[in-house]
Amino acid sequence: MTHRVLVVGGGVIGLSCAWRLAADGHQVTVVAPTPGRDGASWVAAGMLAPVTEVQFGEAALTELLLEGARGWKEFSAALEGASGHDIGYDQSGTLTVALDTSDRAALDELLAYQHTLGCTAHRRTASECRGLVPALSPMVCGGIEVPGDHHVDNRALLRALVAAGQAAGVTFVRSSVTAISTGNTDAGAGNAGAAQSGPVAVLSDGSRLGADHIVLAAGVGTPHLGGLDQAALPEIRPVKGHILRLGPAGSDVAGPPLLNRTVRALVHGRSIYLVPRPDKTLVVGATMEERGYDVTVRAGAVHELLCDARAVVPGIDELELLEAQAGLRPATPDNTPVVGWTGLPGVAVASGHFRNGMLLAPSTAAAMVDLLAVETR
Amino acid sequence: MTHRVLVVGGGVIGLSCAWRLAADGHQVTVVAPTPGRDGASWVAAGMLAPVTEVQFGEAALTELLLEGARGWKEFSAALEGASGHDIGYDQSGTLTVALDTSDRAALDELLAYQHTLGCTAHRRTASECRGLVPALSPMVCGGIEVPGDHHVDNRALLRALVAAGQAAGVTFVRSSVTAISTGNTDAGAGNAGAAQSGPVAVLSDGSRLGADHIVLAAGVGTPHLGGLDQAALPEIRPVKGHILRLGPAGSDVAGPPLLNRTVRALVHGRSIYLVPRPDKTLVVGATMEERGYDVTVRAGAVHELLCDARAVVPGIDELELLEAQAGLRPATPDNTPVVGWTGLPGVAVASGHFRNGMLLAPSTAAAMVDLLAVETR
Repeated sequence: MTHRVLVVGGGVIGLSCAWRLAADGHQVTVVAPTPGRDGASWVAAGMLAPVTEVQFGEAALTELLLEGARGWKEFSAALEGASGHDIGYDQSGTLTVALDTSDRAALDELLAYQHTLGCTAHRRTASECRGLVPALSPMVCGGIEVPGDHHVDNRALLRALVAAGQAAGVTFVRSSVTAISTGNTDAGAGNAGAAQSGPVAVLSDGSRLGADHIVLAAGVGTPHLGGLDQAALPEIRPVKGHILRLGPAGSDVAGPPLLNRTVRALVHGRSIYLVPRPDKTLVVGATMEERGYDVTVRAGAVHELLCDARAVVPGIDELELLEAQAGLRPATPDNTPVVGWTGLPGVAVASGHFRNGMLLAPSTAAAMVDLLAVETR
Repeated sequence: MTHRVLVVGGGVIGLSCAWRLAADGHQVTVVAPTPGRDGASWVAAGMLAPVTEVQFGEAALTELLLEGARGWKEFSAALEGASGHDIGYDQSGTLTVALDTSDRAALDELLAYQHTLGCTAHRRTASECRGLVPALSPMVCGGIEVPGDHHVDNRALLRALVAAGQAAGVTFVRSSVTAISTGNTDAGAGNAGAAQSGPVAVLSDGSRLGADHIVLAAGVGTPHLGGLDQAALPEIRPVKGHILRLGPAGSDVAGPPLLNRTVRALVHGRSIYLVPRPDKTLVVGATMEERGYDVTVRAGAVHELLCDARAVVPGIDELELLEAQAGLRPATPDNTPVVGWTGLPGVAVASGHFRNGMLLAPSTAAAMVDLLAVETR
């Protein structure tokens, strides 16, 4: 059965849901200020990392992430085919390294836990690490190789999702949703929504868009939507992350890239990652900060990222600082995304993907397709 | 006698010369791509610092800088009057601090030398330093107070110079000079210059501007001007400087500024400065790098500046990183500017001001006025 579906949000989750729902035959509209350039997805690094994202006590989340990773190759091929865009899906793997012996001990504990979860991860000596990634600092004292943790060019992915959505018939409305009206609570309030009983989105210019179903994929903006009973929605808070983009300068532009795979590290207890792009830029991230809805780029955070990144890969000193940004990850109390119907009629949610939006976009979109397929209303 | 004077360059030196020459009755044209936003002047911090810029073995330069400082108050008042702009001329003085005992010893040696040159500078204990500037790190172990080293808002200064120049009748041509033709060497090459015997500037669009005199104030661009016998020009090379601009964020916007005067420091042997602005932004600089004509913002340089600045004033961590830039100081072999006639007929030069362009702009402009006043041709 074909539904009119309105997706709120133009990040990786909203766009993936929109594309797959449209491909499944639904009549889909995306409302977002700048689809494909919004929110955390644009700022992100694009890691697809179920294993190196393992945290103690989050076995259920790891299982979800591993399942997400299994669908990525097929999703990537389908998206590149549908959009005609290369999304920079890179399967060269990830190396996590330790900078001191404490970091080394912490990684060994993590490795043992990864193994209990059934993950594929290999202990590597310092010289093995440097053999894999010659740009590493001489201070690196060992690490973990995870061949199955990949990465994607997040911005190429977003562009491809917009293109694939357009090709599948998705309508894009460049605006913001300020409120959602459901059911009969304000049926007499506007003409646009009067002819049907589904939910209605109120846009920033006051206009109203009705639909059979609304999918809330607005990331950290989800709790700010008006007209909703917040108790019926999952609890989502912003976790700020600073991130840098570096690129080769001068004669290095023509040379080989600094890194041949994603490098993650523990640097005296602090986590950092460096993700290479096909254009030889490097994405360096990311801080984890509880600062509310604040995307100010702080000098101290930029210092921390540069300090830790150059401790692991000294060659970054010669790269150009192209961008310093901060984004807000949509986090839930248990770090697990919320995908399904809300307590509000006709309103579904796909948010709370925290650090794993890129990785979980395919499985989230598939789940949303299943959700609407069984909906008979 | 009134001359037609063409000034090449829209930095602080070119604009100051243009304004003062026009005020002296000359018919002045400035050629620059974006007058008041060009080159090193736009990137600079605006320190007016004859004493804290003292280097061993540069007594003659220090005398020049002290002389420059003596004229600044009058220049500032005249410029603010002529332009109607506040230029942020701040006489709160400068405190140079040491971060470790080696830095302390180096500052003591510098202080003794400053005293032999007759400079006013006072030794301050660690607690005296913190009394003067409460935001200093507890690690600071003493310093030198220099009440006579001031600062100006370099960008406000440039805007005021453009406005004062316009009010005095200066013509601004937004273009670049690619070459200078002098005398009869190519008298038949163009009509524009054929009617007079003075030098001619060739612009990037091929057009030609004749004048009685040309003043080369193009900073590091000076050696790149075509048509000139380079042997007749002073040797000028670019010395790269990275600089940051930081500003208050969130609730700090309404609070007091972090610094109440310019703070300079030796941080384990490396020099850094932090210059406050009336709008509560801070200018943090600057590296000294011999890298040719390269203005790439390098990650390593940004790290170095942040690292040293936060060692001296930890509160910068919470500031927003507004800008990271690199500029090219025009340096001469003896670090002393070159102001006077070149070996080419009708062509004067005012360049090579290195780290002291703002400070020396008034005296340089006055010297150029004198130069043309005695010229009888």
